[in-house]
Amino acid sequence: MTDQLHDTAVRGFASDNYSGVHPEVLAAIAAANGGHQVAYGEDVYTERLQEVFARHFGDGVEVFPVFNGTGANVTGLQSMLPRWGAVISASTAHINSDEGGAPERVGGIKLLTVPTPDGKLTPELIDREAWGWGDEHRAQPLVVSITQTTELGTAYSVDEIRAIADHVHERGMKLHLDGARLSNAAASLGLPLRAFTRDAGVDLLSFGGTKNGALGAEAIVVLNPEASEGLKYLRKLNMQLASKMRFVSAQLIALLEGDLWLQSASHANAMARRLRDALDAGIAAGDLPGLGFSQATQSNGVFAVLPDGVADRLREGGFRFYDWDAAKGEVRWMCSFDTSEDDIDAFVAGIREELHRAA
Amino acid sequence: MTDQLHDTAVRGFASDNYSGVHPEVLAAIAAANGGHQVAYGEDVYTERLQEVFARHFGDGVEVFPVFNGTGANVTGLQSMLPRWGAVISASTAHINSDEGGAPERVGGIKLLTVPTPDGKLTPELIDREAWGWGDEHRAQPLVVSITQTTELGTAYSVDEIRAIADHVHERGMKLHLDGARLSNAAASLGLPLRAFTRDAGVDLLSFGGTKNGALGAEAIVVLNPEASEGLKYLRKLNMQLASKMRFVSAQLIALLEGDLWLQSASHANAMARRLRDALDAGIAAGDLPGLGFSQATQSNGVFAVLPDGVADRLREGGFRFYDWDAAKGEVRWMCSFDTSEDDIDAFVAGIREELHRAA
Amino acid sequence: MTDQLHDTAVRGFASDNYSGVHPEVLAAIAAANGGHQVAYGEDVYTERLQEVFARHFGDGVEVFPVFNGTGANVTGLQSMLPRWGAVISASTAHINSDEGGAPERVGGIKLLTVPTPDGKLTPELIDREAWGWGDEHRAQPLVVSITQTTELGTAYSVDEIRAIADHVHERGMKLHLDGARLSNAAASLGLPLRAFTRDAGVDLLSFGGTKNGALGAEAIVVLNPEASEGLKYLRKLNMQLASKMRFVSAQLIALLEGDLWLQSASHANAMARRLRDALDAGIAAGDLPGLGFSQATQSNGVFAVLPDGVADRLREGGFRFYDWDAAKGEVRWMCSFDTSEDDIDAFVAGIREELHRAA
Amino acid sequence: MTDQLHDTAVRGFASDNYSGVHPEVLAAIAAANGGHQVAYGEDVYTERLQEVFARHFGDGVEVFPVFNGTGANVTGLQSMLPRWGAVISASTAHINSDEGGAPERVGGIKLLTVPTPDGKLTPELIDREAWGWGDEHRAQPLVVSITQTTELGTAYSVDEIRAIADHVHERGMKLHLDGARLSNAAASLGLPLRAFTRDAGVDLLSFGGTKNGALGAEAIVVLNPEASEGLKYLRKLNMQLASKMRFVSAQLIALLEGDLWLQSASHANAMARRLRDALDAGIAAGDLPGLGFSQATQSNGVFAVLPDGVADRLREGGFRFYDWDAAKGEVRWMCSFDTSEDDIDAFVAGIREELHRAA
Repeated sequence: MTDQLHDTAVRGFASDNYSGVHPEVLAAIAAANGGHQVAYGEDVYTERLQEVFARHFGDGVEVFPVFNGTGANVTGLQSMLPRWGAVISASTAHINSDEGGAPERVGGIKLLTVPTPDGKLTPELIDREAWGWGDEHRAQPLVVSITQTTELGTAYSVDEIRAIADHVHERGMKLHLDGARLSNAAASLGLPLRAFTRDAGVDLLSFGGTKNGALGAEAIVVLNPEASEGLKYLRKLNMQLASKMRFVSAQLIALLEGDLWLQSASHANAMARRLRDALDAGIAAGDLPGLGFSQATQSNGVFAVLPDGVADRLREGGFRFYDWDAAKGEVRWMCSFDTSEDDIDAFVAGIREELHRAA
Repeated sequence: MTDQLHDTAVRGFASDNYSGVHPEVLAAIAAANGGHQVAYGEDVYTERLQEVFARHFGDGVEVFPVFNGTGANVTGLQSMLPRWGAVISASTAHINSDEGGAPERVGGIKLLTVPTPDGKLTPELIDREAWGWGDEHRAQPLVVSITQTTELGTAYSVDEIRAIADHVHERGMKLHLDGARLSNAAASLGLPLRAFTRDAGVDLLSFGGTKNGALGAEAIVVLNPEASEGLKYLRKLNMQLASKMRFVSAQLIALLEGDLWLQSASHANAMARRLRDALDAGIAAGDLPGLGFSQATQSNGVFAVLPDGVADRLREGGFRFYDWDAAKGEVRWMCSFDTSEDDIDAFVAGIREELHRAA
Repeated sequence: MTDQLHDTAVRGFASDNYSGVHPEVLAAIAAANGGHQVAYGEDVYTERLQEVFARHFGDGVEVFPVFNGTGANVTGLQSMLPRWGAVISASTAHINSDEGGAPERVGGIKLLTVPTPDGKLTPELIDREAWGWGDEHRAQPLVVSITQTTELGTAYSVDEIRAIADHVHERGMKLHLDGARLSNAAASLGLPLRAFTRDAGVDLLSFGGTKNGALGAEAIVVLNPEASEGLKYLRKLNMQLASKMRFVSAQLIALLEGDLWLQSASHANAMARRLRDALDAGIAAGDLPGLGFSQATQSNGVFAVLPDGVADRLREGGFRFYDWDAAKGEVRWMCSFDTSEDDIDAFVAGIREELHRAA
Repeated sequence: MTDQLHDTAVRGFASDNYSGVHPEVLAAIAAANGGHQVAYGEDVYTERLQEVFARHFGDGVEVFPVFNGTGANVTGLQSMLPRWGAVISASTAHINSDEGGAPERVGGIKLLTVPTPDGKLTPELIDREAWGWGDEHRAQPLVVSITQTTELGTAYSVDEIRAIADHVHERGMKLHLDGARLSNAAASLGLPLRAFTRDAGVDLLSFGGTKNGALGAEAIVVLNPEASEGLKYLRKLNMQLASKMRFVSAQLIALLEGDLWLQSASHANAMARRLRDALDAGIAAGDLPGLGFSQATQSNGVFAVLPDGVADRLREGGFRFYDWDAAKGEVRWMCSFDTSEDDIDAFVAGIREELHRAA
């Protein structure tokens, strides 16, 4: 029954959700077990979770644990929008690119997308789609959604978020933040979670636990209660209400009650930094022919450009990662809480070897 | 981080999802941890799960793990229906009564509901809504959904399901089964899972793990591949695709690879039986004035009728359970894998005491 | 190009929408033609329409012309409901029985239906589904929808509607009225339109023109502006915004600026009355063996029960009408603005003949 | 009742749907009046309509009259797509820009949009979004939608459409065509309707009557029956089924039985040509300082660029038209079946006057 079917020594750079559960999170699940607790969120762990989030984001925030990031994004956005609302996002945003159309199909939300160089919106980019209020022929742009850290491994500064929030609010819109990797952003910026979210004007966010060592735990966090309505009902009707919610909440408590969230995210970021620094040094030394980078490394992902064929040979050699834009030779290397320095060093050596072979 | 916030000695009869995780399931989660596994279902546990289900349901079944029962039901039904399809169900069906309108809102599915005395459809009851094919003014009845065991604690016999399946298929419809408590049904009928599902003509079912000792694990099981289309895509767009799916699959393996599923369900059923038998005996002895039952006890739930005020006083005395139909004095007492004989005996004593006080 | 393909002498009792366009409505369409008018409702006819409706329903009402009754119902109901709202209606309501699931699929609305003897809800019947507020597992009952006159040809009295409205409002719900045959109700009650709608507590209604001599013109009428939000946008996104709206509005003006609406509806009602009276007299005289009625005749429809085979033979004889409930021998005979006394008299004679043949 | 509220002498260049109904269409509506016809499309006019369309598009086409273009597009696209399908279109496509999000909200369809210089897709542009089949994280691109003539007044050649169709079909996708102005395209290309639609590989189209002199009549035309499913039901549930359908069908018959469709579209195109030619001549003569054009004039719309302030002053002077992209000074001038040569000449004179004043 408890057979281990896999080789626990295998790790890679494919995604931070290829990693498993942090031992402390697993211990928290076990501790929440036993006896009976009211289902569907009326348990003591979910109650405690409210306090834990209030410690990070301030009084008055409301937390709704859900199953996954898509569920958090779609449900949170619906709570911010009337049926006729549209959401402005970067075209690379997860809600546009990786959610199988859930925002449109489940949420009934039209996305107004804007190409960006680095996954980050700006007031100017937002304005390309922020128009047409009052014209019923146009889906009404009422929410702007940003991702922090972005799907391209970049991070908004506090000032950048504040500028967006001000811009958005001045136009009567609201600001949503997809924080699947919010902890990595805090680690990257060296700031408390609220400094670049609530204090910078974000109205509602999706908080990601899964990519940071949870088994499966995300949360919708209402930072501005006036910007959201009906989450209690929307979470249920969107099929995101866990019956044994105590185990979802316990995971988030395990991450956030102490500093596990920050330790894990800082470690993942540091491993990406180690990878980037080693490669940058190699490039500077003329030792990595043909290697380049397409994005700044500001969190736990490195976006690189490889000469033809190198990515495939690295994968044949046992390294695991995905193409990002195969046409451009662009690849994505993700680090997670359990990536080791040895993993990085072996990968750097492997990259060097294949680049030399290709040169 | 791993603080236990709750009293693990507290149990009740409110719901089988108030219970926690069976220790073997927790051990299986831990065993699936460590190292990296491909996310979103391309892991070895999810692969093994297919074999495990094939052992129970026969070759050719397909299994799609999901987060919760509503997700399984709505996604499974969508895969069986065109956009213009309707589902005939008992009015007490979970899809109609307890899913916050998810079938309609997320699934775009119209429900055609039929009142039943015991939560069970029959060919005759189905025919009240099985008409109007070809008339575009009527949402087209193309699927019948039954629940086994039912929301009222009753169980269909194999013959009853087969009669429904034949009736449904003769009319060009398909048969869906909500098996949130399918294990309890197998235990109740003393039959293998396939005997009263696939072999009886069920086309697709929702298999419930959570109420039977999982942390949170349900599965859509396609028994007749010709009856379902696009589940891969529907699961994703319905926000039911777990990134770290290995942990969902591991739970289901833990239940189904051996006989944990059956042991746990049999135990829960036996506890309900013990409760019902003790109360029946008391009634026969004239010792439980005013107590009656509204449904047969065929699984892990007892549906009783109490004199005015008795339910509330029992709850004040620390017993936990819900009213089912307060206007009629009807209550529901659920047993789970961790209900003990002492729990039952203490509850019977409590009921006797309150009935005497009320008499 | 202008060929007449049909025999204009053929009439029947199948439906009031089998009739064509009243000549005055056609003249109004022609008068609205020529030159350019702003599309999508910014024309002078739609502007005038607001005044015309205000004359009937009082100051402050808002009118949104739409294409058809289903569009009016679904769009109007959406404007009254959050995404988690449900609507209580009679199970015979058009929204439940004849709209192909549009309320669920397009509107995302769950219907909570109640069987009624005569198509009319009462406070008691409403209470069968008016419960569970605050419980996210239950789709929230926030609107009650009644039909006037009902799908069964019956009419609510003012007092009945007021009692429902008070009951609904006391529970924090809103009252919607499907008025596909509202003019027939006014004719039946001998009351101004507002007396049994706005003044009786109805919050929003669908006003039907098509069944009363329009080519195709319905309107959503907001009686209580606080009960509805976003109709401008909802009408567009629900694909109910006519580009050349002047011609829709002109039809409604033609009906409502004078008393054409009332004349036509009164005539249709009178023809149904003539039919019922003649048949009642025949029954009293023992001359119509086996004929009975299943509903009171309070508008333009007669619901009768015929002996086996009689309905089919009448249709073979050239009379046109539909079975309502074939199993019970129940048929529906609808009259419209162009039904003539001769039509009625010939039909009565035909019925008598077939009943005698069958006896 | 039949008051004419508007000045029929006023015309403008705002939109082809600001015009009214062609007298022959109105006569056809009148001819279809009288007597009773089966509702919801079982009438002789709708039957005849099938033949009329077959004459234009060939045997085996199926025609579903609907109320408006958005209804035709969304319903037609749904019939071509499973629930997980996405549609590739130009970002300027009506379905993306002007339908209030109906494709997403009502249709559950994700749009994958591509910027184009002239509103026209090409195989290369399609390939920017035609990828990711089999990956459930990506909404599956299964239909490409083109508009003919485009929203920018341009027209695809037969070869261009055939190249797109081949490209689309080779990739297992289907080709949809929004033909709100299909008649203008035929007039522009000098080709029968089927030459650049069915014969060029289009699978399903929306045929527009309203902008070409109908009161309100559009149709979904299935050219390839294997590419579409369930339109009968989808039209109803999408609230696009007219009860008195004979009057919708009669309008389309009036247009298409003879050559009214072509005469009207040719006239509108010719008026746009007259406008463009006069202005081109003026520019060549140095007489229209600051005037330019942003698009070729290939149908009934002229897209021009004006110096700052000129558009507003023209409007103040009584000319009616819309900005297309105010930031660029781009305006749209639409001609319709009732635009006269005098209208054009007066407008040219007005433009000249304002340009000189501005220079």
